[in-house]
Formats: sequence, C-alpha cells, structure tokens
Amino acid sequence: MTDEPPLFEMTTNPSPLAGRSPDPGLDAVESWFRSQENLAARFGQVFRKSIDEVLDGQRTARFDLYIKEGEGRVEKTEKTYLGTKVEIVTRAEFDLGHGSPMDYVICGQHVDAKFTMGKSWTIPKEADGHICLVMRADDRTETFQVGLLRITPDVLNNGLNGDQKRGTSAASRSGTRWIVEHGELPENFLLRLRDRSPEKVEAIFRASDGYRGRGNGGQLRVNELFRQVTGRLVDRTTVVTVATQHDSPKRVRDARKHLRKSGIVILGYRRPDPDIAADLGLPIPDQGTWVSARLSVVDDDSPRKATLINGIRYALWSAGDEPVVAPTIKHAKSEA
Amino acid sequence: MTDEPPLFEMTTNPSPLAGRSPDPGLDAVESWFRSQENLAARFGQVFRKSIDEVLDGQRTARFDLYIKEGEGRVEKTEKTYLGTKVEIVTRAEFDLGHGSPMDYVICGQHVDAKFTMGKSWTIPKEADGHICLVMRADDRTETFQVGLLRITPDVLNNGLNGDQKRGTSAASRSGTRWIVEHGELPENFLLRLRDRSPEKVEAIFRASDGYRGRGNGGQLRVNELFRQVTGRLVDRTTVVTVATQHDSPKRVRDARKHLRKSGIVILGYRRPDPDIAADLGLPIPDQGTWVSARLSVVDDDSPRKATLINGIRYALWSAGDEPVVAPTIKHAKSEA
Repeated sequence: MTDEPPLFEMTTNPSPLAGRSPDPGLDAVESWFRSQENLAARFGQVFRKSIDEVLDGQRTARFDLYIKEGEGRVEKTEKTYLGTKVEIVTRAEFDLGHGSPMDYVICGQHVDAKFTMGKSWTIPKEADGHICLVMRADDRTETFQVGLLRITPDVLNNGLNGDQKRGTSAASRSGTRWIVEHGELPENFLLRLRDRSPEKVEAIFRASDGYRGRGNGGQLRVNELFRQVTGRLVDRTTVVTVATQHDSPKRVRDARKHLRKSGIVILGYRRPDPDIAADLGLPIPDQGTWVSARLSVVDDDSPRKATLINGIRYALWSAGDEPVVAPTIKHAKSEA
Repeated sequence: MTDEPPLFEMTTNPSPLAGRSPDPGLDAVESWFRSQENLAARFGQVFRKSIDEVLDGQRTARFDLYIKEGEGRVEKTEKTYLGTKVEIVTRAEFDLGHGSPMDYVICGQHVDAKFTMGKSWTIPKEADGHICLVMRADDRTETFQVGLLRITPDVLNNGLNGDQKRGTSAASRSGTRWIVEHGELPENFLLRLRDRSPEKVEAIFRASDGYRGRGNGGQLRVNELFRQVTGRLVDRTTVVTVATQHDSPKRVRDARKHLRKSGIVILGYRRPDPDIAADLGLPIPDQGTWVSARLSVVDDDSPRKATLINGIRYALWSAGDEPVVAPTIKHAKSEA
C-alpha cells in the first residue's frame, strides 16, 4: 500500500467496487457518470422525451408504446428508432463525444449505447471487449435502469440472431454496474390515467365523435380532458396528444371559455394562477403544465380552503354545492 | 354512352386518364388528392418537416441526410424511420384514415405509404394488388415526387431481398400516376449554403472552437451565422442546428447584442423589422425567420435605399462605407 492518490476521483456516490475484477476503464466511466449532477432525473427526462417524440402524440394521438395492432400501433421500425433516439438524447444531455465504431467516448473509453424496452440487451459483435451503456425503460411500470457492462463472452447468450447480434445473459445482471438501478420514469399521464380510470380516457377521446377534421374535434377533446381530470397537473404532451395539434396554449385558453359554464377553471403558470392553486391546496402549475378545478362560491366564514378571485371567495366544489359559472381570471399577459 | 354523371368527381386539375387501363379505385384516390388545396406545397412541408425531425439538428448539429460515416452520420435505422415519419406526417397533414394491413384508407381504397430517398421503392408482399402512395424526396436537388401506383407483377423487379420486399421496376415509372411530378422541396438552408459557400459553414461551426460545453459555444456559432449570411432569410431549424439548443429566439436576441459593434442588425417578424427589411430591399422575415444586414449611416440626400431607425438614416453597408455601431431597434414585445 502506498499513499498515492486514487487513479480515478470519485466525486459523488462512490460505489463499492470491492470484490470485482479490476477494470480501470470501467471505473473511469462509472466515476464520470456518478459525478454528473442530477444524474437520475436527467436520465429520466432522456427516456421520457425519447418515448414522447417517437409516440408523436400531436400527430398520432398515441400514448402507449406497447400497442402492436390497430390504429394506435407502434411499428417495429419506430421501436428500433427509439433506441437511436435515446442514444441521441443521451449524447446531447451529457454532451458526450462521438466514438467509432462505438457511439461515445467517455474518459478516453469507447462506450456503446444500448437501449431496450424488454429485459435484455442486444449486443453487436463490434462491441466485444468494449463498454456498453445499457439502458432500459418501462413506461407501464414507470421505472428505468442505467448501467455499465463490459462485453465479455460470459455476459452474452450464445444465440445469434439474423443480424449477428447476441442478447445479454442472466449472468450479465451481476456483472452490470448500475448507475441508476431504481430510476423513476416521469409519468406518462394518459397511460397512467387509462390504467386507473379507463372510462375517463374513453370519454376524452370520444368527445369529438361525430366531428369531422381535427380543428373542432381537438378542442372538444381538450375540454373533456380538463373536465374529466380535475385537481391533477396536466402536461403539454398530454394536451397536444389529446388535441392532436401543436398549439397547446391556444387549446387551453379556449377550453377555459368552454368550461366556465360548468364552473371549471384551468390554472396555468402565470400569476395569479399558482397562488390560487396554492390557496385551494391544488398542485402548483409550472410553465407547460395546467391544473383544472371545479369551483363553488363560499361565505367569508367558511372553514373550507378558499381563494379570492375578482373579490369573490371560491372553494373547490363538493357534492351539494350550488353550481356556479367559473370566474374569468386576468393574467399579466394573454398567453395561457 | 349514357348521360350518367361521372363516377368520381374531378374537382381540380383533372389529369388525362385516356389510354390507361381502367382502374376506378386508383381514379378515386387520384381525384381525392388532386382536390386537396395547396397539394404540392403541403407535401413539400411533409418532407421538409420529416427530414428535419430525423436530422434532429438541435441535438446533433446535423443538416445532411446523406452522410454515412463519422460524427455527422445518419444511421440506417434513422433512414428507415424517415419513411415511417413521412407516413405519420402525411396522415396528419391530410387527415387520412387508418387501413389494415395498408397504411391508409382513402375513398374506401387501401393505400400504402412508400417513401424513398433513392430511385426505386421497396414494396412488401402485402401490398400486392393494392395502391401505393409512392413518395420520393431529395434534399440535395431540392426536389420531390408523389405518385400513385397499383402494385402488379409488371411494376416490380424479380429480386427479393431478405425481407421479402421487391423493388419497383423501371417500368413502374410509366405506370405511376404522378400527383406531384416536379415538386420543389423547401430549402435546407445549411445544406444549400455548404454547397455554395463551404467556407461560410466551416466558419460558423468553427466559431466555438476552443469553447467547452454547449452554452457559450452555441451563441458564438449563432453570432457567426448572422455575420456570415447577411441578406438571406434564416429559419428556425437553421438557428437551432447551429446553436444545438432549442431556444432559438433567445440566441437571436443575444446575437443582436453581440453583432451591434460590427454594424449588423438581425431583423425578425415583429414591427418595425419587416418595414425596415422592405425599405432596404431585403427579404421580409415572417414568424420563425430572421434576416441580418450590415448597415451604414447615409445622408438624407443619398440615392441609396435607406430606412430611418431612431431618427437616423441607414442603408445596407457597402465597401468603403464608414463602419458604424448598429442601432438598437425597439419592438412592441421583448421576444425576437
């Protein structure tokens, strides 16, 4: 033992490397990733963005990556491309250099990006001996994993598929150095809603039945979205997927007008909306998110959580309350 | 001969169908497309958007679909996916119904979308007997074609590739009913610039050499873009590709400050910018486009095209003019 400094600096969250065969290259890449700020949250966004871009909800109304047949299906070419998109978004997010033939160069090591929606990764022959950044995301369970794996014969299955690519073996699991082992994938709002309340998703997408074209139909669906899902943050991806249009702020502004008669307000990120949301105990909308709420007028001495809008006191509607027309909330600027 | 009305109404641009074997299904689909407003321009945008989304310039700085090696390469999976993206964007643009197993249903006919960057289309077995919407775009020649082809043995090559797909034959060309035969693909600004002035593209992308990270580097490249390319409309895709960042208006606003000392203004769509552009004989910027210009101060009696900014008379700079600091132009709102 000497007093020499360690070869690779472990700036944050050093992982126990004891008991593993020495692999300074892998150590270096692992340390590099662990030194990145907000590592797990950034990878979560990498997968969320990649999946949402491939679903292309604003054009296709799709929100479920796992549909294989019918109108909402995701083609095999799209799933293959999802891996390429993840590689691109990861490179941009972490400003990674280009390698050849591997995808990235990190700390002088050639690293290949490998993404799977399933359980194992497909490894091309060229990756033999190299490090793979193995990534997995599951939109249904809202989980993801990111790890590093040195490709040696013992981490691969023998089976070759047509492309001369091999799958990772069960043994690869213990050989993988997890950078994020239990990642929480940011929620896919509509997928989650369909799991919990399929009738609501059906009502939203049926709201435009009988309408031709996308214009009016999209507005009717967005109205129904904010009518069905009160008290929860709704993100931009959800609005454009429901609208099948890209101008989500405009659809939300118009939905405000349509839902006034039903006593529903849609709160955005502009003042005073976040204050109203806070007063009412609702989640606070940030830029690109909205929360709708049905309101009632309450007395000054009501013990219910309440907020003042245009001089009138409002609480969240509850059964038995008098129906009211929702107030028009003035914002600093006209945008939603 | 009877006086019955024609089976399918040819609302605009009827094509001469004489001399062809009767195919009422194909006639119907052809008529439907020909009745769409701005057909050629809309298809042009379909291909422009699809190519730009696959290039993903804001993350990859790529603008050339045809690079096969090195950092700027476009992977085979991306080119395959381009066909899927074209199918999706076409469906959204023309609000086409879903078919099975073909992509679309148009006038009750099952129609498959087939896109190629090359010269022939690859046709799957399932398309036999069906109509294909054959589409082709070439970003280098700025051309595209869209046609309809009934898949019969005589329009196919015999050769089968691994996927049991056959290519269209030379004979297919005469059998194709062109909907848009000589389409002009909207320009890929950077690709065109590199063709004409490769040294300018090099100067733009080298402007950030020596800088680490994307923040400052992107701004330096955007500054150089507007310094190198004066007097031409620059679109949003170009700015985000050069910046490798998505907030193009912010980069343009900052470039304005950086380029003042060089006497360069960047005009956008907000008043009074379009008026200034018109006064100076520059192309008029619309939303999402900008035009830069180097200015000189000129006398009131100068015969040169000039514009008044903050009470001072400016013309386009020409050799021999005194260098000036560019004026700050006040806009109605702060956005670029």
